[in-house]
Amino acid sequence: MTDTFVVIGGDAAGMSAASKAKRDDPDLEVDVFETGEWVSYGACGLPYYVKGEIQSLEALVSVTPEEFREERDIDLRTGHEVVGIDPDERTVTVERVADGTTLEQAYDHLLLATGAEAVVPSIEGTDLEGVYTLGSMSDGKELREYVARAREKESFQQPDRGPACRYLEDCAGRVAVVGGGYVGIEMAEALAANAFEVTLFQRGERPLTGFSEATSEAVADHLRERDVDVRLGTEVRELVAGEDSETVAAIVTADERVPVEMVLLGTGVRPRTALAEDAGIDIGPTGAIATDAYRETNVPDVYAAGDCAEATHTVTGEPVYAPLALTANRHGRAVGQTVAGTPSEGGTVAGTAAVKAFEVEAARTGILDHAEGREAGFDPVTETIDANSRAGYYPEGGTVTVTLTADRETGRLLGASLVSEYGEGAVHRSHAIVAALEESATVFDLENYDLAYAPPFNSTWDSVLVAAKVLAGNLR
Amino acid sequence: MTDTFVVIGGDAAGMSAASKAKRDDPDLEVDVFETGEWVSYGACGLPYYVKGEIQSLEALVSVTPEEFREERDIDLRTGHEVVGIDPDERTVTVERVADGTTLEQAYDHLLLATGAEAVVPSIEGTDLEGVYTLGSMSDGKELREYVARAREKESFQQPDRGPACRYLEDCAGRVAVVGGGYVGIEMAEALAANAFEVTLFQRGERPLTGFSEATSEAVADHLRERDVDVRLGTEVRELVAGEDSETVAAIVTADERVPVEMVLLGTGVRPRTALAEDAGIDIGPTGAIATDAYRETNVPDVYAAGDCAEATHTVTGEPVYAPLALTANRHGRAVGQTVAGTPSEGGTVAGTAAVKAFEVEAARTGILDHAEGREAGFDPVTETIDANSRAGYYPEGGTVTVTLTADRETGRLLGASLVSEYGEGAVHRSHAIVAALEESATVFDLENYDLAYAPPFNSTWDSVLVAAKVLAGNLR
Repeated sequence: MTDTFVVIGGDAAGMSAASKAKRDDPDLEVDVFETGEWVSYGACGLPYYVKGEIQSLEALVSVTPEEFREERDIDLRTGHEVVGIDPDERTVTVERVADGTTLEQAYDHLLLATGAEAVVPSIEGTDLEGVYTLGSMSDGKELREYVARAREKESFQQPDRGPACRYLEDCAGRVAVVGGGYVGIEMAEALAANAFEVTLFQRGERPLTGFSEATSEAVADHLRERDVDVRLGTEVRELVAGEDSETVAAIVTADERVPVEMVLLGTGVRPRTALAEDAGIDIGPTGAIATDAYRETNVPDVYAAGDCAEATHTVTGEPVYAPLALTANRHGRAVGQTVAGTPSEGGTVAGTAAVKAFEVEAARTGILDHAEGREAGFDPVTETIDANSRAGYYPEGGTVTVTLTADRETGRLLGASLVSEYGEGAVHRSHAIVAALEESATVFDLENYDLAYAPPFNSTWDSVLVAAKVLAGNLR
Repeated sequence: MTDTFVVIGGDAAGMSAASKAKRDDPDLEVDVFETGEWVSYGACGLPYYVKGEIQSLEALVSVTPEEFREERDIDLRTGHEVVGIDPDERTVTVERVADGTTLEQAYDHLLLATGAEAVVPSIEGTDLEGVYTLGSMSDGKELREYVARAREKESFQQPDRGPACRYLEDCAGRVAVVGGGYVGIEMAEALAANAFEVTLFQRGERPLTGFSEATSEAVADHLRERDVDVRLGTEVRELVAGEDSETVAAIVTADERVPVEMVLLGTGVRPRTALAEDAGIDIGPTGAIATDAYRETNVPDVYAAGDCAEATHTVTGEPVYAPLALTANRHGRAVGQTVAGTPSEGGTVAGTAAVKAFEVEAARTGILDHAEGREAGFDPVTETIDANSRAGYYPEGGTVTVTLTADRETGRLLGASLVSEYGEGAVHRSHAIVAALEESATVFDLENYDLAYAPPFNSTWDSVLVAAKVLAGNLR
């Protein structure tokens, strides 16, 4: 008798699981229910679509619904929302979005891959016209349409728009980005590249709070160089409508009222857990669905992976919520393997992330925050160094700034943050440190790694090794 | 009583050792004897000096003799050649190059950092005018002067010089590079960029024989695109003089006689071991000076590091001769630390190397050759994959080709070779695999590494992870 694997959600985790399970066990029946129309898309590419560097939303789709159905033999139903799970009966209730009709579907294995949703801050005015988030393909579409519409206006094209425009009540093209995380920064770039006057509001004292201070500063400086007005330590209190009472016209902080015609909320995401909670599936300390190392929930044969689920931190071994694309792909794939008969863990999560901000690139991994490190039982020590991105004498190089954190007692590496000009390798260099974290290596190990060297790529000691040498020296 | 640390050789290994020893133990007397006039220089930068991208030899010097003497309090004597070691008396005999006078110098600790010398193949004609090697600063100087001289000739500047020029007896600017290793390839670029007609002769069936076949092919293809005439499987039999009987005029292979006005021999290096051998210091199986993990030779308190000495291979644990800059720096520094009182190993050598060839970059590490792997007790399996260097939809990306080798039984990673367009990250991505090799990780570990991802830097699964997934799949 054929087993049925039901997947709820058709993006990275869901489609990775479905594809892998079907590939490893072609006899398995694999059914995927997706509420929307898009599946298997790269949401990380949306800012570049809004910016205009990618010409169609379809380009962000890695595998189309037709390919899943016809080539991979997966029963993918878009426009179908799972509205209930009955773990005792091992069935899900599915509602067809188009007409509200429902159906019951039995499962032997079930994966919750319901993803995350944008957090909308609890302030007045977030429901006004002109207020956007960026989480879904339709968000991307709306934002791109907004950009096109705004740029067509005569007032937008007037030659007297300039650096002072954003302070003028009657100037077109003034926009606000709320939040200095990846989405906020990538959208600031996307909008500024389209000649908008961008003000970025960040509640904390620096953007990219999960990165090192040196990285945050480099990014903030660069945003300002590119004419983004970065307001740090600035909490947004309210969004205010204009004369029509419907469209946003200003953003209000403790100190001032800044006229804007559009607001992009980049204030984080939260896991979609309602369906799991209703079915009695445990939620973990991070607020996401709790799982074991195989992504199985407290309910047997029910798995959770991707942006709706917790993972295990590479360094601390504790639950962590890190809703990023690679984790979703990796854990989805592992669930597919497990369901097809080969139990697979799919690895831990180091909290690694990368971002490009105009012509700067940055990456972070592991634990950088000392309080967080202490809580996990470490005694964190941090060093930050600047090194040449290429040999000092080699043309056109820049600087790589590397922040490295290790445990004082053991020298064990805890985390890192790197920043350089775009193309000078901060992100790819971070790979070495991720590998070191994965293998519980120490800073004394790292300083002796035989990393590749040639003048067009680094100094004899790559910046990563320089950081390790300096930090190791402090611990001896 | 103050100890004396004598260092023979003033380049990477020697000066790293001297500086580190003096820094860690300021009471130590540190004496460095260097035959030539240059110390602490980046020989790896010489091709770019010849190319014209670096304007002075001085730019290649990281620390000047004056800085060593005045700021670091090191007794550095250039123009002084050590001609004998008496291990029983613990003295060295030093000859002043200028006048041939000698002196005796006592030591408590001695480091041989005598480096390597270019191998000149045993064929006729290598002593002709117009035949060069590239190992030392003076080699670099001569080559740059040759380039300038050749380009000034009227015949070089004639408009009818073109792709066919290299086949014409009377055409200026035809040059040959013998050897398809790093130096050969970097010099082919340097000369072609100066409008020479370059023919590259490689005895083996592919350039960069230590890299994977896929890497070699990509580099050979690119050299040809850049109009370098790459002759593979072609052994040079003789260099022939012109009418003056003094200057090279042709290069002779089994099949033909190719007119050239200059020949660059990039046929490898060999360790300078004569001084060690005379003093009864053991030479290892690779032909370089044998040492223990602390770079100490069989003679107590006599160390050897850098291009004259063996190292221990990261993967096999066997002696290896890998004369590269980082090893010299790292092991020199470790000897300095040891001499100053903190015994330090300075790590193993994975045989990691990087090279740029025009607009292509490549790196290799570990063991790729299956015969070599089997000899070390492994059962090597290799996979090669192509992946996007950035997200497929992101502008201006290219391809990264990753070759990965692991042991069939255990999955342990053995080696890798990567190639991409310059700037697309093959070299910096190799760092992750070096780290994995250093930690004896398996391909099953690597496929789950939480490497940084964002669309401007990779696909969700970085090319390194794609290679690991494919190879791991084959081993399951």
